[in-house]
Amino acid sequence: FFFGICFIMDGSTKEVANPRSGSVVSVADNETVIDSEEGEIQLGNPNIQRQKEDILYHLGLSNLGSDLALMFGDTRFVCMGGSAVRAEKFANKLATRLSISIPTGMGLTSVGKTERFSLFKIGPIISVNHGMGMPSMSILLHEITKLLFHAKARGVSFMRIGTSGGLGIPAGTVVATTEGVNGKLESCYEQIVLGKEVKHETLLDTDLAKLAVSLSNVAGKEPVPCVLGKTIGTNDFYEGQGRFDGAVVSYSAQDRIDWLQKAYDSGVRNIEMESTCFAAWCHRMKIPGMIICAVLLNRLEGDQVTATPEQLQQYSANAQEIALRVIEHKLAIEQ
Amino acid sequence: FFFGICFIMDGSTKEVANPRSGSVVSVADNETVIDSEEGEIQLGNPNIQRQKEDILYHLGLSNLGSDLALMFGDTRFVCMGGSAVRAEKFANKLATRLSISIPTGMGLTSVGKTERFSLFKIGPIISVNHGMGMPSMSILLHEITKLLFHAKARGVSFMRIGTSGGLGIPAGTVVATTEGVNGKLESCYEQIVLGKEVKHETLLDTDLAKLAVSLSNVAGKEPVPCVLGKTIGTNDFYEGQGRFDGAVVSYSAQDRIDWLQKAYDSGVRNIEMESTCFAAWCHRMKIPGMIICAVLLNRLEGDQVTATPEQLQQYSANAQEIALRVIEHKLAIEQ
Repeated sequence: FFFGICFIMDGSTKEVANPRSGSVVSVADNETVIDSEEGEIQLGNPNIQRQKEDILYHLGLSNLGSDLALMFGDTRFVCMGGSAVRAEKFANKLATRLSISIPTGMGLTSVGKTERFSLFKIGPIISVNHGMGMPSMSILLHEITKLLFHAKARGVSFMRIGTSGGLGIPAGTVVATTEGVNGKLESCYEQIVLGKEVKHETLLDTDLAKLAVSLSNVAGKEPVPCVLGKTIGTNDFYEGQGRFDGAVVSYSAQDRIDWLQKAYDSGVRNIEMESTCFAAWCHRMKIPGMIICAVLLNRLEGDQVTATPEQLQQYSANAQEIALRVIEHKLAIEQ
Repeated sequence: FFFGICFIMDGSTKEVANPRSGSVVSVADNETVIDSEEGEIQLGNPNIQRQKEDILYHLGLSNLGSDLALMFGDTRFVCMGGSAVRAEKFANKLATRLSISIPTGMGLTSVGKTERFSLFKIGPIISVNHGMGMPSMSILLHEITKLLFHAKARGVSFMRIGTSGGLGIPAGTVVATTEGVNGKLESCYEQIVLGKEVKHETLLDTDLAKLAVSLSNVAGKEPVPCVLGKTIGTNDFYEGQGRFDGAVVSYSAQDRIDWLQKAYDSGVRNIEMESTCFAAWCHRMKIPGMIICAVLLNRLEGDQVTATPEQLQQYSANAQEIALRVIEHKLAIEQ
């Protein structure tokens, strides 16, 4: 069951050139691509139109209720992480690092409702949390993509900056994901749509991943351990990742290590719960995407996250540092 | 592809009587059931022992770091909802309704860390949020079940109190779930464990669901619209639920209505993102479980959630009211 071939069953598809990277992607015939200005987000749903009301329910925003173009038209990066706390901290870190001045008497405050997600905007960057797991993330991806469409934002890149379990690398190492793979080690994201299984490819923009690694070790800056690798995205933290510390366990220690070792041998360097959904979305929507995750432990050595709060903070900061360098680099090129 | 038979491929299984409901459930041979006092939570993992350190990472608690028996030993109900805001509001509502006095100068405050989940404890009840989607919920289920095991809590029931899209019933109606079904309308929850597909049955305690309906319309209390029904649990809010308001859409209006109508005809009354995971867990761990969800709209009529904040609050309150009546009823019987 390992290394199975993943048939992309997306209905009838056609090959089209990705306008940004030049690479060829397959697009289902029935996914209408709406004409738009160069570099703008293109939706695959003709029902969503800028002049028609569209409620972004989980963000607590709507296109007619707010001037989304004014608020988000300049967005160039959407940085996503699991927790709301981290999204806010990262927004503040961005302000300092990019020297974006916040007027006296003001502070960063979330935009929209915070019951489901917490969204911050600082300069050309959105920092928002996606919750845990792909279903939660997929809600955010749909709504943030529609938000950027309504805002007429151009040339936007998506980044997931998170934490994960590592494979064969020490805690604190950052993995720049080359592609997402599922629990069967297949490079695809599976959905059930109207009762049918649909699969999407999970290739990421390798230029961004390679840039991340190259910026991890540069003159004049503290080196950050950073490697390229495949990233497993699972739908379950305990059994889905072969842990021995859940409330139930249904496999042997040998089964567990065999699976982890096979994953390592196939190029996997970390395991989390969002990679295939995120990668498939970026590939499908032709949005450059990058996943930068620090590993909190080496799963070849254990299951429990035993790092101290200080260590966890440092590991998380490592991933943020890499993302910051990529953002700085990209913005500097354009100036 | 509708109404497919769901083979439960859980390895070798044996039939055992559910000690609480008397119904027969199948348990995998390799799921070790640990001996315990009558009514205590039984784990299926011999590696978790009360005297050995166990870090409940996403709750920010551990068995050796806190006296979990003192803190949670009296727990009888775990009430779960999607959002942290709702978990806190419900905890305060419970305090008022059950006349649990909070000393002057004190207020409810969350237990453990709040980065991932927010957990409140009031009297014999835990009110905690599970985030959105089954992967997030499954993390909570593992950790809360281990917490109750460490706490030696007895006779605990789990309730999910949430919101959903309705099928053929008006907004505000509450559905008491009889069983969870997946997007293919099969009564099972699928996991990928060490590269293999594993399926679990998703039957819920129908005594609890029927009790919920019977308590919705009683003398002296405001009637609340409440019906029995199957509940679809999907991994995606937009395409996974056949919506036309996502960033992409890959099906026709006819495909959409055909699927919704077939679901309705098979007894489905609402669609959300947690039912199969929750039901499978309760069934597997032999914990009485109930899902009580208000519907925010009738999906046979549309996709967008257009209700006002006041209406949404009322719908949510309807589900909470039913849950409160079940809790009051259960606690009154024992006194």
